[in-house]
Amino acid sequence: MERVYVKDIGGVKEETILVKGWIHKIYDIGKISFLQLRDKTGIIQLVVDKELRDGLRLEMSIEAVGEVASNEKAPTGMEIQVKELTILGQAHYDVLPFPINNGEVKAHLETQLNHRNISLRSPKVRAPFKVQEEVVEAFRSFLKSQNFSEIHTPKIIASGTEGGSEMFTVNYFDTRAFLAQSPQFYKQMMVGAGFERVFEVGHAYRAELHNTWRHLNEYVSLDVEMGFIKSEEDIMDMEEAFLKYLFQHLNKTCQSELELYGVVLPEIKKIPRMPLADAQNILLEKYGKKSPTGNIDAEGEIILSQYIKETYDSDFVFLTKYPVSKRPVYTMPDETLEGMTKSFDLIYKGLEITTGGQRIHDYEALITNMTKFGLNPQDFDFYVDSFKYGMPPHGGFAIGLERITMKILELDNIRQATLLPRDLKRITP
Amino acid sequence: MERVYVKDIGGVKEETILVKGWIHKIYDIGKISFLQLRDKTGIIQLVVDKELRDGLRLEMSIEAVGEVASNEKAPTGMEIQVKELTILGQAHYDVLPFPINNGEVKAHLETQLNHRNISLRSPKVRAPFKVQEEVVEAFRSFLKSQNFSEIHTPKIIASGTEGGSEMFTVNYFDTRAFLAQSPQFYKQMMVGAGFERVFEVGHAYRAELHNTWRHLNEYVSLDVEMGFIKSEEDIMDMEEAFLKYLFQHLNKTCQSELELYGVVLPEIKKIPRMPLADAQNILLEKYGKKSPTGNIDAEGEIILSQYIKETYDSDFVFLTKYPVSKRPVYTMPDETLEGMTKSFDLIYKGLEITTGGQRIHDYEALITNMTKFGLNPQDFDFYVDSFKYGMPPHGGFAIGLERITMKILELDNIRQATLLPRDLKRITP
Repeated sequence: MERVYVKDIGGVKEETILVKGWIHKIYDIGKISFLQLRDKTGIIQLVVDKELRDGLRLEMSIEAVGEVASNEKAPTGMEIQVKELTILGQAHYDVLPFPINNGEVKAHLETQLNHRNISLRSPKVRAPFKVQEEVVEAFRSFLKSQNFSEIHTPKIIASGTEGGSEMFTVNYFDTRAFLAQSPQFYKQMMVGAGFERVFEVGHAYRAELHNTWRHLNEYVSLDVEMGFIKSEEDIMDMEEAFLKYLFQHLNKTCQSELELYGVVLPEIKKIPRMPLADAQNILLEKYGKKSPTGNIDAEGEIILSQYIKETYDSDFVFLTKYPVSKRPVYTMPDETLEGMTKSFDLIYKGLEITTGGQRIHDYEALITNMTKFGLNPQDFDFYVDSFKYGMPPHGGFAIGLERITMKILELDNIRQATLLPRDLKRITP
Repeated sequence: MERVYVKDIGGVKEETILVKGWIHKIYDIGKISFLQLRDKTGIIQLVVDKELRDGLRLEMSIEAVGEVASNEKAPTGMEIQVKELTILGQAHYDVLPFPINNGEVKAHLETQLNHRNISLRSPKVRAPFKVQEEVVEAFRSFLKSQNFSEIHTPKIIASGTEGGSEMFTVNYFDTRAFLAQSPQFYKQMMVGAGFERVFEVGHAYRAELHNTWRHLNEYVSLDVEMGFIKSEEDIMDMEEAFLKYLFQHLNKTCQSELELYGVVLPEIKKIPRMPLADAQNILLEKYGKKSPTGNIDAEGEIILSQYIKETYDSDFVFLTKYPVSKRPVYTMPDETLEGMTKSFDLIYKGLEITTGGQRIHDYEALITNMTKFGLNPQDFDFYVDSFKYGMPPHGGFAIGLERITMKILELDNIRQATLLPRDLKRITP
């Protein structure tokens, strides 16, 4: 007999079906018991008599064969009158670490993370990962439709994109290597190597000493790089088109997960593009909020997002024209605005989720800029060498997967959007 | 004017079009020159007069506007009579490291890898990565159609799946961590955490001291794990169904790449499943070839594949029933065959591309086996803990992405199927 998923029970013709899953709840009422069976797709009520009920405990995995019946008192309006029940996975615990069958999981986030195998069994705790999966699906399918190629680049690297600060070191046979902070150099090289337009879904590593609600030391980066562009406006256009596609995709594929978190994703219209200096002025003049040189801080991002929402009815804003001194060495200077670059950040609901921009593509301009930055081009020879052979104008962006997931569902902590987070204090489970 | 890709030129209505790409070849014939322009999708002949030709060098990136014309002498039967030509990316080299415009790239593989930005510009060198991209695409789309969820698990881990041998160490703040050899523990945990069926496309790391044609120290692992199985046969069925789907997908999406390498992918029929002991006997009796205890060696894999091809007309063979002593601690023992396990390898054209099998799912059985193996369960507490809460019967497999790509195209060296390989001697580019 083929196993039927809970979500499909309503559409099945057979009277007797086989279901599998975990025991979510048990109610004993005299000689019969009601079990809630939870599988990947939903929860269904099972009705079992005393003989079958004996020995059952919460969270055992079981399979059950029985007849489907309507019961308007059952949570889904249906139940299964069980004839056969087999325990597939035994329980070996004294007490569950915390209850997961009462909607919200009340345990402290750290406790939930310590028992990830348990906390994720809660449909509400697991839901962000369905959204995350569909973010990645939309990212890939949109970019492939735009002639991008998916690539996989090394995470063990010999030198850093930003000069080696905040990188984890790896003992690689007899030498010291690093874990890549981003695929920046490689995605640029692959544009030049003839792929023209590339994307990567891969891990990135930051040895930052931050332990906050929005930092991870290992995260998934959605990276994009495209060649033959006119300016950084092409890059923002591409990201904006992706975000429009993404929200449509999520509204189609994740309706129940969005509802579980009370989130409505609006249609994205034009995303405002505002020079950083203007944003800093607005913060200062309207809110009395000073910003650091060449950036706005976390609080500024939140206030600015509120302003943008009220003024432009947008959850997103591109901040443009960051100063040379605050951007990496490969960033294209803005020839129309002394000291500024053709780069941008994207702020979404008060949090930076993207950095992007046009890159320097001319060999001599890159060498000159490296020297200005106090870097030795020879330390990056494999990268710099790529620019000798007709590198076209290009640029790109990266989105932090956990960050965008967190903000879509308005989660409090990025760890709620991370299956198994790695932070300053955590490398297990 | 919208840029037209080379592959689309034949279908365009406009007489005057814009193309972009790199200068692949230059022929000067008196007052006019023929350029071959190479973009991501193909090569087209450009006809330019002397004024426009001046200053052009091989591999510069350019854009050109001109009229499409038929010319039966042109390589594709079409050419563009160029009216405007702009250099987008300058050349800053004295001489190209090696020629890439004569079909096969003759440079030594190590030289090609040193200049990846150049070697990949050769359509033939780049083709394996189109095939690789479609392998990943097929993997995801097939598994999603089978109710699998895509996951992302940490690569920085606290303890190894096989006890810590052959792992790279990472300096993680004040502690020592490792790079994951596989997502084994985590994919099992996620099955138990309610995802039931999961897959991951991610990096795996092996600090093996091998420098061979088939080893990489960083590779992409296509990992699968599925719950609620009956036996390892379900796992082999799933992999076999994927491979059938994959070959159909590649025949649809990669015809030109397969032709470039002279490869024909046959329809996959039933893949033979043969106990390891039988394979060892065949090797010994038919070919006088002795095998190591509990395995067959690289030469044995090649000979056996020839035997299987001749006998069963299959490029694949599942070897089953490996001994307990040769398999990891989490492998399910075979209750029907003393000392053996419910595990398998998949050999494809003489190379192992998969290891898989059913896993132990009962907590007490796992603890017992760990003790038998001389391991301390407390060293793996986060993993072992997951088995206390009704872990269902489950199993899975993993395919090395570069290995399957290499064998599909019958490449000589796995580095030809790796954008930027990491091996004993190479961490750049």
